[in-house]
Amino acid sequence: MPTLEFFRLQTRAEVLALYPRFAPVGAEEVDLAAALGSVLAAPLPAPEDVPGFLRATMDGYAVRAADTFGAGPGLPQYLQITGEVAMGAVPEQGVGPMEALRVPTGGMLPPGADAVVMLEYTAEHPDQTLEVRRPVAPGENVLQPGEDVQLGEVLFPEGRPLRPQDLGLLAALGVTRLKVFRRPRVAVFSSGDEIVPISRKPALGQVRDSNAYLAAAQVAQWGGVPLLKGIIADDFEDLKAALAATLSEADLLLISGGSSVGTRDLTLTAIKALPAAAVLVHGVAIRPGKPTILAAVGETAPLPLVGLPGHPASAAVVMEVLVRPLLERLGGLAAAPPWGREQAALLSRNLAGASGREDYVRVRLRREGETLWADPVLGPSGLLSPLVKSDGLVMIPLGVEGLNRGEEVTVRLFS
Amino acid sequence: MPTLEFFRLQTRAEVLALYPRFAPVGAEEVDLAAALGSVLAAPLPAPEDVPGFLRATMDGYAVRAADTFGAGPGLPQYLQITGEVAMGAVPEQGVGPMEALRVPTGGMLPPGADAVVMLEYTAEHPDQTLEVRRPVAPGENVLQPGEDVQLGEVLFPEGRPLRPQDLGLLAALGVTRLKVFRRPRVAVFSSGDEIVPISRKPALGQVRDSNAYLAAAQVAQWGGVPLLKGIIADDFEDLKAALAATLSEADLLLISGGSSVGTRDLTLTAIKALPAAAVLVHGVAIRPGKPTILAAVGETAPLPLVGLPGHPASAAVVMEVLVRPLLERLGGLAAAPPWGREQAALLSRNLAGASGREDYVRVRLRREGETLWADPVLGPSGLLSPLVKSDGLVMIPLGVEGLNRGEEVTVRLFS
Repeated sequence: MPTLEFFRLQTRAEVLALYPRFAPVGAEEVDLAAALGSVLAAPLPAPEDVPGFLRATMDGYAVRAADTFGAGPGLPQYLQITGEVAMGAVPEQGVGPMEALRVPTGGMLPPGADAVVMLEYTAEHPDQTLEVRRPVAPGENVLQPGEDVQLGEVLFPEGRPLRPQDLGLLAALGVTRLKVFRRPRVAVFSSGDEIVPISRKPALGQVRDSNAYLAAAQVAQWGGVPLLKGIIADDFEDLKAALAATLSEADLLLISGGSSVGTRDLTLTAIKALPAAAVLVHGVAIRPGKPTILAAVGETAPLPLVGLPGHPASAAVVMEVLVRPLLERLGGLAAAPPWGREQAALLSRNLAGASGREDYVRVRLRREGETLWADPVLGPSGLLSPLVKSDGLVMIPLGVEGLNRGEEVTVRLFS
Repeated sequence: MPTLEFFRLQTRAEVLALYPRFAPVGAEEVDLAAALGSVLAAPLPAPEDVPGFLRATMDGYAVRAADTFGAGPGLPQYLQITGEVAMGAVPEQGVGPMEALRVPTGGMLPPGADAVVMLEYTAEHPDQTLEVRRPVAPGENVLQPGEDVQLGEVLFPEGRPLRPQDLGLLAALGVTRLKVFRRPRVAVFSSGDEIVPISRKPALGQVRDSNAYLAAAQVAQWGGVPLLKGIIADDFEDLKAALAATLSEADLLLISGGSSVGTRDLTLTAIKALPAAAVLVHGVAIRPGKPTILAAVGETAPLPLVGLPGHPASAAVVMEVLVRPLLERLGGLAAAPPWGREQAALLSRNLAGASGREDYVRVRLRREGETLWADPVLGPSGLLSPLVKSDGLVMIPLGVEGLNRGEEVTVRLFS
């Protein structure tokens, strides 16, 4: 049996502090229609004003606002209707004193007009006289040129992931192509003599390759492109060759390794044998997830490589807590706010922490009247079903003995 | 100028109550690797036990637990090592009384063994004697067959959207193909004489087709497949023909219509002219979003058609509040819990409600010390930039005069 090698465990903060050495992936141009969720690779100043012209926001009449001052239900003001503005067209005539032009919502205001009287507060008389029953202020019911966005205004900083409304505004600005970070390609390997492809019926003693599917789906969910690289037997040469062959086609390598010491040692040896490889982390002070490896392969632009623990719950936690921030770094994502990722809840039972490690406990959320409870879903980290039954993780910080029933906790949601 | 037609505004609840008449789309089979986010079209009982055999969860020695009882640091128990279990293989021999077999994490336990002593609490002597310094209970450090999932157990009900850990467990179960709801196809039309394609420089009076991009991206984000159908001029025959041609290829039609009364009337007339079309809703008691249309086209399996308001903020709110639940209905999604979609925050200023309508106010979230503030982002609904600057919506319910500064509100997050 191989000897146990003891490294000093590194804290999560220590591991995250290593990430700046890994550079974000390069940029590419994509069509606006394909840019949802992409991350801007450069700030995007507005190339023009939106709207580009003085625009009505209501159906009504373009007027000089001053001509309506003093109008009221009992004392209407009377203007002369001189024509109408066609949708999408430049008005053919201006609005002079005491004149009005019909204008639809979205229509361009004619020269001279500075406001729109809503249809509801008017009446048309047969002689083309307009009765105005309510005054409008200058600028009322219109959008000024540049009121939405001004030429040169930077609404979209670098590192911003694009949401639907962002695409809407970019469409309005005529931005049809965008410079975004490529989605990081993440090669996912499975290793272990006991692992068989999921399409095969495992013999006694064998198990299917489940961790690779879990990790690949997490990668896809967080904006990466997973490359399922299949299963490698516990053989040094095979493992080294497979990893080496992938260095040029991926931005991050994940090895969903075995949990046994033998497999872990083998993975570590194969990693160390790669060109200019440095093992930065071998063991993290989190539970589950201790036997995690982080290595940098290559000198000038090192490629990150993560050895995941073999137990599914450990792998899932390491993916969430350590790989997700790494993937976000590679993908150029600016720091994301926590809303939507976290949920406050009350813990429904006492939980003891893991001495000397940050402890991640799977929880299910349950509403009971006004209270949202976080129910710990316990079970060995070799099981998948507790993850399936859970909505997220609660962290017991390093140095905290435990959490008490009824305590408010922050649930990090599986999204 | 066309006449205004007044319909009774329907409440949001009344609109949602109409959705059960629209049937979910059909099912299809997909590969497990492509199933992330898909919605199960049938409950999925486990086709076998996981694990399929008694499995070690630690590196150590397979033993009969009873043989270790009474062992302690000062009084070790001694067993005879008779061999080892190879990873992924069926053990060649059993464990007899006072015997032990080396076993790696994930290895299968040999007949006779019922627990694993961890490596850390043992020492091997040169004569193949194992010193055990700590007792184990039966079942300790092993997974029982079926402990993760039992044959026939239903962990995945119909209507469940699949998450990464779900795919992991399904991989472990050997489920390579899944019956899921097709992603609903959503045709998105833009109408209006003033609208030009986004690649074209608008002349004065024209604007680019931004709402279609916003709506299409929302559809994609919520699991649908958007079909961008382009721009139709304000012409009854064109509009009717375009809608009719799409009835057979989409599961939902969205018309991002103009905001002017003329365009709205035209849209309504074209909808009414479709075969067996019934206008169910013409005006909803929400702000923004009042001029929303919902129609059902066809008799036996009616197709839903939504006319969106022309102002971008109105369209975005109607998409979020009315179209999203409809899309979820069509996609077979079971009721989703609110966590991850909502965030509690304190309102940073007073807000007046809209008399007689549910009022949706765009807000930006801002952390200040321990407090999370929701800052209203005001502005006419014709603007896109307030949506871009916002993180979500706060709703002022019908019949509530307003909300006060410092009041806790639930922010419905843009996700």
